[in-house]
Amino acid sequence: MLYFIGLGLSYETDITVRGLNAIKQCSRVYLEHYTSILMTASLEELEEFYGKKVTLADRELVESGAEELLRDADKEDVAFLVVGDVFGATTHTDLVLRAKQRNIPVEVIHNASVMNAVGSCGLQLYNFGQTISMVFFTDSWRPDSWYDKIWENRKIGLHTLVLLDIKVKEQSIENMARGRLIYEPPRYMSIAQCCEQLLEIEETRGTEAYTPDTPCVAISRLGSASQTFKAGTIKELAEYDSGEPLHSLVILGRQTHELEIEYLLEFCDDREKFKQDVASDQEYFKPPAWVPPPEDED
Amino acid sequence: MLYFIGLGLSYETDITVRGLNAIKQCSRVYLEHYTSILMTASLEELEEFYGKKVTLADRELVESGAEELLRDADKEDVAFLVVGDVFGATTHTDLVLRAKQRNIPVEVIHNASVMNAVGSCGLQLYNFGQTISMVFFTDSWRPDSWYDKIWENRKIGLHTLVLLDIKVKEQSIENMARGRLIYEPPRYMSIAQCCEQLLEIEETRGTEAYTPDTPCVAISRLGSASQTFKAGTIKELAEYDSGEPLHSLVILGRQTHELEIEYLLEFCDDREKFKQDVASDQEYFKPPAWVPPPEDED
Repeated sequence: MLYFIGLGLSYETDITVRGLNAIKQCSRVYLEHYTSILMTASLEELEEFYGKKVTLADRELVESGAEELLRDADKEDVAFLVVGDVFGATTHTDLVLRAKQRNIPVEVIHNASVMNAVGSCGLQLYNFGQTISMVFFTDSWRPDSWYDKIWENRKIGLHTLVLLDIKVKEQSIENMARGRLIYEPPRYMSIAQCCEQLLEIEETRGTEAYTPDTPCVAISRLGSASQTFKAGTIKELAEYDSGEPLHSLVILGRQTHELEIEYLLEFCDDREKFKQDVASDQEYFKPPAWVPPPEDED
Repeated sequence: MLYFIGLGLSYETDITVRGLNAIKQCSRVYLEHYTSILMTASLEELEEFYGKKVTLADRELVESGAEELLRDADKEDVAFLVVGDVFGATTHTDLVLRAKQRNIPVEVIHNASVMNAVGSCGLQLYNFGQTISMVFFTDSWRPDSWYDKIWENRKIGLHTLVLLDIKVKEQSIENMARGRLIYEPPRYMSIAQCCEQLLEIEETRGTEAYTPDTPCVAISRLGSASQTFKAGTIKELAEYDSGEPLHSLVILGRQTHELEIEYLLEFCDDREKFKQDVASDQEYFKPPAWVPPPEDED
């Protein structure tokens, strides 16, 4: 059996009882290690908690060499642990497919992930649109295809969850070119950097998917004891010191209810200003009157 | 301390280790009982597993009489258990607010919910739009505001998660009128009924948010041992026997990748037909060429 087990967001005890029981009967345990990190537990703490050796699985191991992972999983129990829930990343779906092709039975044990736990900022999950990823801009690479997605979401009044880039076990271009397996220290995007990139692309594109005054919620260390929410405009949050990782951001859509705003007011510096910012943004982006499509003339 | 603890989807062991530890130190434990059900564990099994008495909290208790729930929660530990994750329903956000207003410390322990576990059908969570709820139609009440939301999602190529109605502890109109606390047996909407209601409203509205041939995935008993996925068109799924509850449905958007389709093919009766259905739907609903907005003439 190949178990896919979500670890949740933060603590080693965020694993489910069922997940922990499964790990205890596995002969090999891998921890997926390149799309996210568990915030408050080290590898050693996990190993002690599980009573098992845990092998870190980097992108190479999962995407190219799934051989090691799948080996004998039809005869013995193997666990593949994923921070958050199991199906946050395409590669994990791919791994399930590969296991099925070899007739390896698969069991999925779900857990919380940012995709549902983000509801704890007070915004209703029902009203979120597509999720985007914000990557670190470099001098030569400033991808902005996410801009259209924010625009699409906001056109129909939906919130946008922005997942902030993390770089774990990345090589510098020089080391990669020389084939040296030397890795850069891990990097995690801050709320301020994300907001600066948002402002930059809005200025370049200029089609107003949002403005510097569009209200957002910064979410830091979701699910941990130091979890923090901060509500403010993009411009304000571009100056915000969000502290330790991990972070994500929600750009508000027009579909906000009074109760949601009331909840967010707990997280802002100036309640009256924030209320006004939300109202102005809603007014500015209110949908134009609906025009029926032209009749076909045939 | 007032603990909000997600129970996950199905088994009593789907609770997290941290959640279970918290329950064990609580003097009172309530289980929210009107927005969802835990599929494979009875109240008695939960009580035995926790080693605690569990009080069912119906809508009245939570929405009107939160008094009992919040009583002494500043001095002792009280747990409020929610199937799935904590923030699936607005009322729970409201309860957090009320606790904060009384200076009762709150801790949230997250878990999986349909909102993220739906990823196990193979469709990427990134590409889901707003979520809709499908309620049981009655002779006099056939609400269809969800239709516009599907249309909005599909216009920008996104999938729509449809949550199917459950009726737990509902009164008949007659019993309600006479003030008799007699409750109807629980009812859970089937996939077939949901699809029939989809077809009916498309026929009434006629603006083609989708067609009878639009591809969907039926999700039954998510996270349990008898979890089943079925891929087919709305018309086909209107004839589908989905078995025991709970169910939900995903209406596919245009943004599907090859790997996602490959995954879904495992769940359909006729792979070639389903591939063709997806391609036809994508072609039929492909977006019109983008027209720049008119210049302001000032």
